[in-house]
Amino acid sequence: MVLDGVALANKIKREVQKEVKHLKIKGIIPTLRCLVSSNDRSTRVYLNSIKHNCDKLGIDYAEIGTDSENIIKDVEMLNNDDKVHGVMLMHPVPEGVNEISVLSMLDPKKDVEGRTPENLGKILLNVPSLVPCTAQAAVELLEYYDVPLKGANVTIVGRSTTVGKPLSLLLMSRDATVTVCHSKTRNLVEATKHADVLVVAIGKPQMFDASWVKEGAIVIDIGINVVNGRVVGDVDFDSVSKKASVSRVPGGVGSVTNAVLMRNVVKSVQLI
Amino acid sequence: MVLDGVALANKIKREVQKEVKHLKIKGIIPTLRCLVSSNDRSTRVYLNSIKHNCDKLGIDYAEIGTDSENIIKDVEMLNNDDKVHGVMLMHPVPEGVNEISVLSMLDPKKDVEGRTPENLGKILLNVPSLVPCTAQAAVELLEYYDVPLKGANVTIVGRSTTVGKPLSLLLMSRDATVTVCHSKTRNLVEATKHADVLVVAIGKPQMFDASWVKEGAIVIDIGINVVNGRVVGDVDFDSVSKKASVSRVPGGVGSVTNAVLMRNVVKSVQLI
Repeated sequence: MVLDGVALANKIKREVQKEVKHLKIKGIIPTLRCLVSSNDRSTRVYLNSIKHNCDKLGIDYAEIGTDSENIIKDVEMLNNDDKVHGVMLMHPVPEGVNEISVLSMLDPKKDVEGRTPENLGKILLNVPSLVPCTAQAAVELLEYYDVPLKGANVTIVGRSTTVGKPLSLLLMSRDATVTVCHSKTRNLVEATKHADVLVVAIGKPQMFDASWVKEGAIVIDIGINVVNGRVVGDVDFDSVSKKASVSRVPGGVGSVTNAVLMRNVVKSVQLI
Repeated sequence: MVLDGVALANKIKREVQKEVKHLKIKGIIPTLRCLVSSNDRSTRVYLNSIKHNCDKLGIDYAEIGTDSENIIKDVEMLNNDDKVHGVMLMHPVPEGVNEISVLSMLDPKKDVEGRTPENLGKILLNVPSLVPCTAQAAVELLEYYDVPLKGANVTIVGRSTTVGKPLSLLLMSRDATVTVCHSKTRNLVEATKHADVLVVAIGKPQMFDASWVKEGAIVIDIGINVVNGRVVGDVDFDSVSKKASVSRVPGGVGSVTNAVLMRNVVKSVQLI
């Protein structure tokens, strides 16, 4: 089986579109602002895809350029602007700026990427509000395909603050037995082959072939790597798909992530 | 080997005592307030031990009785009182009160138990500030005995918001490969026998005997159970100590927890 992120993404986007229409009847236009300080190519590509989704779904989108001198003032300005519902602080922040300090200032109700300490802490407390989009997308893709999580052995490879760590907490709350692996893990293949559900998110192109995976497992590929101009995941899809169910890259979790971000903007309207 | 919590607790308390003296020279008396709404026996025993420690170390301690009608007002009053550095919201809160909502109102800088969403989120972001005392105590006991954590397979049994979940994040940041087990875990003994470091925190008196533990492992017992008037842990100490290094109950993590709480009060002075 292939876990198709596009089908789920489209379902979420239809729901968002409906919600945006309801809000417009009430005179509310969901509004997203991106604080941007870098202009590298991958940021540009990402921002264009967000803008494209916003335009399609009726969300008011704009970018605000910032720098190390203005970033704090800009966050405060967006916090205080009642017309702005969602704010994204684009990574990387300007040199010399402490990213976590700036994140801590952002109003958690506008934190559509779920990156503030308060929103991350709410995941630990099992009262999630705005959740990091990729971690949330992985969970929803599993649920969309009715993958049993209760008692399942889940191995997550990667311990980032945006994916591995929050995802481990979300899956614990769904009664999975979760192991988090990373670069310092000693016998990684033992941990991946033990998994009923394997999630990989380390950015190593096609590293995981069939030899890493248990027969019949569910594999969620969160890697996004560009190799010779082509986007590939951390999983060797052709090899693994003969033995296990896998999400595609592209067309897997990434597609759902974008839809979840749009839904978080609509959710932020209700939080304010 | 027996992991002795009392030795470490005394070391921490000596440091706290020194710090309290320094603060007094500057005219600052570290001040802790406990918001109490229940008067059951175990709460009373716990509060008495905190008071005892505060008195010994020179920390100003008082209890404030509260109820469902006043609890929010009382939290605000303590947030705004510059003379109060640390606040504990005693569990359980009055019936009908949403504990997490009240916790979310508490000033994170005064949250000496590390229970607010913001402080828990900071653990996930690997910028810990005030950390839940028991989770912190377990880490410090491991570090006090130079237990190698980098690459170690750690199994935590119990996924509470005060121990299992924050401890899993703290140990991930120290490069351990962490598995969190709980009541829905399928093959628990497989997970515990796999562990170089086993942490148990589920409140089942002496459940874990030698058959659950790998030869030479380090076992941290966080259970506190009263059986026939005697306090015992989740570990069958006599059985496991023949095969592995174990922390005692009492005299293990619990002792360190109390000392960490005192240190958090002093830390909260510096945060305000």
